[in-house]
Amino acid sequence: MRVLMYGIGSVGSTMTRMLLERGATIVGAVAASQEKNGKDVGELVGLDTQLGARVCTDPDEALKLQPDLVVMSIASYMEDMYEPMQRCIRTGANVISLAEELLYSWNTSPTETAELDALAKDHGVRVLCTGHQDGYWVSLVSVLMGTCFKVDEVLGQCTWNVDDFGVELAQDQQVGTSPESFKEWASISDRPPTFGRTSLHVLAAMAELEVIDSMTSSRPDIAEAPIYCKALDSEIPAGKVIGFTDVDEVTTREGIRLRLEMTGKVYAEGETDSNAWEVRGEPTVRILSDHLATHYTTCGTLLNRIPQLLAAEPGYLTIDTLPQLRYQQSYVG
Amino acid sequence: MRVLMYGIGSVGSTMTRMLLERGATIVGAVAASQEKNGKDVGELVGLDTQLGARVCTDPDEALKLQPDLVVMSIASYMEDMYEPMQRCIRTGANVISLAEELLYSWNTSPTETAELDALAKDHGVRVLCTGHQDGYWVSLVSVLMGTCFKVDEVLGQCTWNVDDFGVELAQDQQVGTSPESFKEWASISDRPPTFGRTSLHVLAAMAELEVIDSMTSSRPDIAEAPIYCKALDSEIPAGKVIGFTDVDEVTTREGIRLRLEMTGKVYAEGETDSNAWEVRGEPTVRILSDHLATHYTTCGTLLNRIPQLLAAEPGYLTIDTLPQLRYQQSYVG
Repeated sequence: MRVLMYGIGSVGSTMTRMLLERGATIVGAVAASQEKNGKDVGELVGLDTQLGARVCTDPDEALKLQPDLVVMSIASYMEDMYEPMQRCIRTGANVISLAEELLYSWNTSPTETAELDALAKDHGVRVLCTGHQDGYWVSLVSVLMGTCFKVDEVLGQCTWNVDDFGVELAQDQQVGTSPESFKEWASISDRPPTFGRTSLHVLAAMAELEVIDSMTSSRPDIAEAPIYCKALDSEIPAGKVIGFTDVDEVTTREGIRLRLEMTGKVYAEGETDSNAWEVRGEPTVRILSDHLATHYTTCGTLLNRIPQLLAAEPGYLTIDTLPQLRYQQSYVG
Repeated sequence: MRVLMYGIGSVGSTMTRMLLERGATIVGAVAASQEKNGKDVGELVGLDTQLGARVCTDPDEALKLQPDLVVMSIASYMEDMYEPMQRCIRTGANVISLAEELLYSWNTSPTETAELDALAKDHGVRVLCTGHQDGYWVSLVSVLMGTCFKVDEVLGQCTWNVDDFGVELAQDQQVGTSPESFKEWASISDRPPTFGRTSLHVLAAMAELEVIDSMTSSRPDIAEAPIYCKALDSEIPAGKVIGFTDVDEVTTREGIRLRLEMTGKVYAEGETDSNAWEVRGEPTVRILSDHLATHYTTCGTLLNRIPQLLAAEPGYLTIDTLPQLRYQQSYVG
C-alpha cells in the first residue's frame, strides 16, 4: 500500500513509523512549513534511516505520486478539510483523517458532507475520519449501551492534553488567550462544531437514535500558576486560558439524552487523560479508563480502521456503518 | 415474534418481562420443575397480568407452539445443551442462549458444534450464545484492543455473584462443598470448559488471532464466616466453598497472551460485580467497570443481540461474526 502523509506533525510522525512497521510504503508527505520542504520523511519523523520519500509543501505535487491512501492530520473542521480532501479524492486516493468534525459531519456540515460523499463515489474511493474519539467516546460507549435493556441518559467526562498534539490544536483550543477573548470567541456564532457534538451524533447513529436537538456551552480552563505549553513552546502566565471544557448535550426523538463534558487543556504535572462514561437506564452501567495515552490511541485506532476502510463501499464513511473496531495485527499495509 | 422461554428461572423471568415490553409474544415456557407445570407464564414471572401462555415440563409439547425464537437459559455447557438445542432447531426455531460454553465452542466441543451448525443450516435457523460475557469480557475488550497499535498481553479480572443466578449455576460453582471435594472436582479430567476459556477464544477470534494453547487453573473461594446463599436458600458454614476463581490463559500463534481471572462466588454484604481489563502494548490501556448489575446486563445484552441473530445467515453463530453489540431500542419483537 502506497501512503501519502498529509500533515507530518506530532501525530503524523508517529503514524508514519507505525505504517512502516505494518509494511506500508510511505511515498511522501505534505507539510505546511517551508522549513520541512525537501527533507526526507524518515529523517523528519525521527527514524534512523532515510525513506527516499520527500516532504513537499505543494499538495498537488505530492499527489502526483499516486498514493492508494492519504492519511490526513492537518485540521479538525470541515471548513479547513473540504478543499484539501476534494483534491485527494480527485486523484483517486482513499482518505483517512483525524478531522474531528468529520467523524460525523452530516448534521454540522450537511452540504459539504453530501458533496464529499458524491465525489468519493464518483472516484470509487472511501473517506473516513477516526481517532481517539472513535474508540473512547463512541465505540466503547456504544457497546456499553448495548448491554442495557433500557437507556435513559448517557453521560461522559473526558480529558485530553493539548500538548500531545500539534500547534494547530493548541491554537484551536485557545491556549494562551485571555478569559475575555475566550468569552468573545465562544460567543461568536460561526464557531466550528465541538468535538463532543459530532461524537454524540455518531453515538446516536450507532443506536439508530434520531437527533432532534444539540446544545453546546463552553467554559475556559484557566492557569492557576504559570504553566509551560509544549505544543506552543511557551509559558502560559497565571490567569490565561490553558484550554477549555465543552459541555455538549444532544436530545433524541426517542427521549434519550446524551451529554459529554470534554476538557482539552495543557496538563499540569501528574494529570493524565481520563475517560468516564455512565449509561443510566436498566441497568445503569459505567466504564472508566484513565492514564490514557491519547496520542497513541489516536494513531492505533486509525491504523486498525484502515482495512475496514479499504473493504467498504466507496463514499463518505462514518464509523456507525463499519464493523466493530478491533485489533488488526495481521493486516499488512 | 413468537417466543418460547426454555428455562424460566431468575434470568428467564426478567427476560420474559423485557421481551414483552419490546413487543414480543410469549407463547409458553419450559420448566424442569413439576411445581411450575401448568402455571401461567405471566403469573410465574411476577407480572400483574396473566399471559394466556402456560408453563410446561415437556419441551416437545411446548415446541408444538411453533415459536420463531427459543430463549434458552437452562445450562452452561455443551453436554447439557446439545440435545435440547437440537430439539429446538428441528422444529425450525431460532435459538438464543446464555450457555457460556457456546459463546465459542469450536475448540472445546468441536464435533457437537459442527453438528449444531450443520443442523441449523439444514433447517434455515440461527443459533447464538450471548450474555454478560459478550459485553464485558469480549466486545468491550475487543474495542479496547482496537485502540492499540500493538498488543502484547490482555489481562482481565472479573467477578460475578452466584446469587444473581439460579440454583443450577450455584451447584456448578460448587457452592457449599468442602475445599477437599473442590480439589477433587477441579482435578477430574472431564470437567467442562471454564467460562473464561470460551470468552478468551472468541476474543482471540475477534482479532483474528489463532489460539495454540489454553490452560486453566482454579482456586476455591472459601467462606471466612457463615454466609447466606440466596440461590441455594441455605447458609454456607465458614470453611466451606462459596465459589471459585478460574485463571485462564490462552496463547496465540501471534505471540499474544490472553489471561482472565474470573471469580464467581456468593457475595458478602457490600461486594459488587467488577470487570477490569488491561491491554498491554503500544499503548497500554485499561477499562474498569464496577457496580455491575450482571443479572440485568445478561438480559439486556441478549435482547440487543436478537435483531442481529435474526438478520444473520443460518448456522451456529458466534459474536465475532456479528456487527458490533449496540443498543437496539427501536427493535420491536
